[in-house]
Amino acid sequence: MVSAVTARKYYPKKKITMLKNVAHGVVPCGIPYMFSSLSCPEDNKLSTSPLAEKQIEVCCDAVVRIDRDEKAVHTESGSTYSYEKLILAVGADPVVPPIPGVNKDGIYSIHKDLEYLRKIIDETRQVKEVLIVGGGFIGIELADDISKMEGVNVSLVELLPRLLANSFDEEFSRMVEEKLKTQGVKIKTKTKAVEFLGEAAVTGVRLDNGEEIKVEKVILGIGAVPRTQLARDAGLDMGRSGGVWVDEYMRTSDPDIFAVGDCAAKRDFFTRKHAPVMLASTATAEARIAGANLYQLKVVRENKGTIAVYSTFIDGLGLGSAGLTEQNARQEGFEIAVGNAQGFDKHPKSIAGAQQTRVKLIFSRRSGILMGGQVAGGVSAGELINVIGLAIQQRISATELETFQMATHPCLTSAPTKYPIVLAAQDVREKM
Amino acid sequence: MVSAVTARKYYPKKKITMLKNVAHGVVPCGIPYMFSSLSCPEDNKLSTSPLAEKQIEVCCDAVVRIDRDEKAVHTESGSTYSYEKLILAVGADPVVPPIPGVNKDGIYSIHKDLEYLRKIIDETRQVKEVLIVGGGFIGIELADDISKMEGVNVSLVELLPRLLANSFDEEFSRMVEEKLKTQGVKIKTKTKAVEFLGEAAVTGVRLDNGEEIKVEKVILGIGAVPRTQLARDAGLDMGRSGGVWVDEYMRTSDPDIFAVGDCAAKRDFFTRKHAPVMLASTATAEARIAGANLYQLKVVRENKGTIAVYSTFIDGLGLGSAGLTEQNARQEGFEIAVGNAQGFDKHPKSIAGAQQTRVKLIFSRRSGILMGGQVAGGVSAGELINVIGLAIQQRISATELETFQMATHPCLTSAPTKYPIVLAAQDVREKM
Repeated sequence: MVSAVTARKYYPKKKITMLKNVAHGVVPCGIPYMFSSLSCPEDNKLSTSPLAEKQIEVCCDAVVRIDRDEKAVHTESGSTYSYEKLILAVGADPVVPPIPGVNKDGIYSIHKDLEYLRKIIDETRQVKEVLIVGGGFIGIELADDISKMEGVNVSLVELLPRLLANSFDEEFSRMVEEKLKTQGVKIKTKTKAVEFLGEAAVTGVRLDNGEEIKVEKVILGIGAVPRTQLARDAGLDMGRSGGVWVDEYMRTSDPDIFAVGDCAAKRDFFTRKHAPVMLASTATAEARIAGANLYQLKVVRENKGTIAVYSTFIDGLGLGSAGLTEQNARQEGFEIAVGNAQGFDKHPKSIAGAQQTRVKLIFSRRSGILMGGQVAGGVSAGELINVIGLAIQQRISATELETFQMATHPCLTSAPTKYPIVLAAQDVREKM
Repeated sequence: MVSAVTARKYYPKKKITMLKNVAHGVVPCGIPYMFSSLSCPEDNKLSTSPLAEKQIEVCCDAVVRIDRDEKAVHTESGSTYSYEKLILAVGADPVVPPIPGVNKDGIYSIHKDLEYLRKIIDETRQVKEVLIVGGGFIGIELADDISKMEGVNVSLVELLPRLLANSFDEEFSRMVEEKLKTQGVKIKTKTKAVEFLGEAAVTGVRLDNGEEIKVEKVILGIGAVPRTQLARDAGLDMGRSGGVWVDEYMRTSDPDIFAVGDCAAKRDFFTRKHAPVMLASTATAEARIAGANLYQLKVVRENKGTIAVYSTFIDGLGLGSAGLTEQNARQEGFEIAVGNAQGFDKHPKSIAGAQQTRVKLIFSRRSGILMGGQVAGGVSAGELINVIGLAIQQRISATELETFQMATHPCLTSAPTKYPIVLAAQDVREKM
C-alpha cells in the first residue's frame, strides 16, 4: 500500500495495480490488541479505500508466477498482468516449529487475515487455558492482551533465558517479565515445548523439563521467514541469509523488479550483517524508497542499513529499543561505553501521573558515536525512542547529544536539568 | 545548578561555590502549575541537595560587584569570593510595562521565589476576578491553571492578534484559544491594558477599546529582559540586542568569565539574529557547554545557534514548536515550502484514547533543509517535537525525513503508514 501510494505521488500518470491474496487484511501492529483492547476485530481492519481515492486498482488474487521475459505476472485465478515495474511486497511466513503434534487443532500461527484472526479470537474466548510459544514482541503483546480476557489463563514459554532478548538488555526484559507476572501470566523462560498432547485437538503441552501443562489453545509467535518462493522461481538473487537481495534503492537483481518489507533482505546499520528485522515501520521506509525510485532514482538512499527500532506497551509500561543492545554490541565485537539515566516523565515529579523513565545509551567508545538506546517509561517512551532512533540514524556523538536543545514541559517531559537522553550521554562521557 | 554539576564532572578537584540570591527557588517551568495542578506550592521547590552531594558549596547571598582585576566578587552581605573562573547565570527580570497604575497592590510579575509565589497563590485563592496580561507561554499556562481554581474567573489580554504568536502559526494558536475559551477564560486579543484602576489596590483595568473590567488580581506575563547590570558594571561586552555577549563556548569578552541562560545573548540557528529565547532547556544546554569548557575547551560547540524548542499542554492538548514558524520564516525572507499531515497518536484510531495529531513542517524550498515544525496532539506531542527539534539541529533534509525509520506501536504512536513527521515531509516534496 505504501509503495503504491508513494508511486502515485511521484508518477501521477502511471497505471498502478495492487494484487493481494487476502480479502480483508489487518493493521499488523494491531493484531495482539484484537483480542481484548479493541472492542471488535473489525476495528483493526486494513482499509484499501485510500488506494481507490488515488486511482490505484486493487485486485484480490494470488500471484503464482513472474515471467520476467514477458514482463507479466500470472495469478491463481488464471489472470495475467503485464508490468513495466513490479514491486514484491509479499511479506513473510510464520515459523511453525517441528514439534510433535504441532498440527493439532487449536494451535495457531498468526496470519494477517481478518477472517482467520476472528476465528482464533472467538475460539480463545471460549477456553480457559491459553499457551503462547515465544517471548518476542508478538508473544508478550498477545500474552498481555489475552490475559485481560475474562476467565482466561495465559502461559508463555520462551527458549531463551529472558523475554525480548534480541531487542533489550536484561534490566529491561525483567521489567516486562514483572509486568506480565503481575497480570497473572505464567512465564517459563529457558523452556522448550517438546510435544503437543491430545487427540485431534490440543489438550496439553509437554515441556523439556518434563512438566506437562493443560492447554486448550496455543498461539505460536516465534518469528517468521521471508516469502521468497516467487522470487526464487523467477531467478532473482537471494540475500546471503534470507530475503530477496536488494540494492540501496530496493531494486532486486532485475532492475525492473523491486522488493520491500519482510520479503526483502536487510543489512544492519552498524554490523553490516543480515538484519532479521520484520517491522512495519522498516517496511514503510523501504516502500517509500521503492515507490519513489521506480522509473528514476529520485530519492537517494545512502547506504544506511536497517535500524531495529521497536516500541511496546505493557500495562502502562512503555518500552522502546533502537539500534544495538549492549549485549548485541559486545557480541559483535564493538568496543562500547554505556550511559544510564533515570528520572520522571513529567516534572516536578509530584505532578499528577509522573512516571519513572529510564534511558540507556550505547556508544562506540573510540568514535563516540551513538549505536543503540533503550527506554522504559510511560506513553511518551514511544516518541522518546524515536528521538534516539533519529540520533542513531544521524550518527550523532555523545558530545552533540550532551548539548541537545530539547523542549520540556511539566506535563509532557522530564525537567530540562534531567532530560534522560542528555543525562545518559553525560554519564557515558565520564566513562570514555 | 547545571553549570556547577557539569563542572564537577569535568573538574573533580576544583572548589565550586554557587551564590544565589533567593533562599528557596522553584522549578521555573512548574510555576504556572503551582496554582492548582500541584497540591501545594512546596511541591515545586527547587532542591539544592544534589549540589551538596557533589561537594558544591551553596551560599545564599547576592553578588553586587565583580572585580575582574582581583578576580573576586563582592556580595550584599559584605563577603568577598575569589575565583579562577566565574559563571554568570543571573537570569532575567520580568518586564513591567509602563501602564499607569501598574504599581498598585494586587499586580504581580512572576519571580522564581517560593515565598513570593506562595503569597500570590494564597491571595489569588481569595478573589474571583483575575486578569492575565500577555498571551505567550506563561500567560496561557497561568490562565489554564488558574481557571481550574474553584470560583475564579480569568481574563487574558494580548496585544497581538493571537495567542503564542511568536512560536506558532495561526492554526495552532486557534486551537489553544478554543481550549482556553472552553475552560471559561475570557480572551481579548489585539487588546492593550491602558490603565489599572483603584486606590491602593487594583480594582479594574481600562482597555484600549475603552472597555473597563473589574479585576482583583493582575498577573503580568509579557516577557523578560536579561539581567546584565553586573556584567555591564564589570565592563563586559554586551550582545547587539541584549544579553551578555558570549562566544560559542559561552565565554564572555573576559575569558575567565562565562555567561549562560537568560542573561546571555543568543543567536538564532537560522536567521543568525539575536534570539529572544528564554527557556530552561536552552539554558541547561548552555550550562553544560560552560561547565565543560571552564578550564579547557573540552566540548566543541559548533556555531549552531539557538533553536527555540517549546512545548505546552492545555487541558489535554499537547503542543510543540521548534525552529522557525511559517510566518517568521517568510518575514525573515526565507523561500520556504510547507508540509502538513494529520493522523492519530495511536492506531488503529479505534484504540482507547487515540487523539488527533497534527504536524506542520517548514523547509527551505531550495536546499530542502528542515527549518521548523509544529505539533498538536496528546501527551506524546511533547517528545514528538523533540524528534523534530533534533532533526532541525541535524539540518536534516525532506528526503532523509521521508525515509526515517521510526518505532511505532498501537498504544504509543500513529501507524507506520501514517507517521505524521514522515507524511508532512512527503507532502512538502510534492510542492518543491
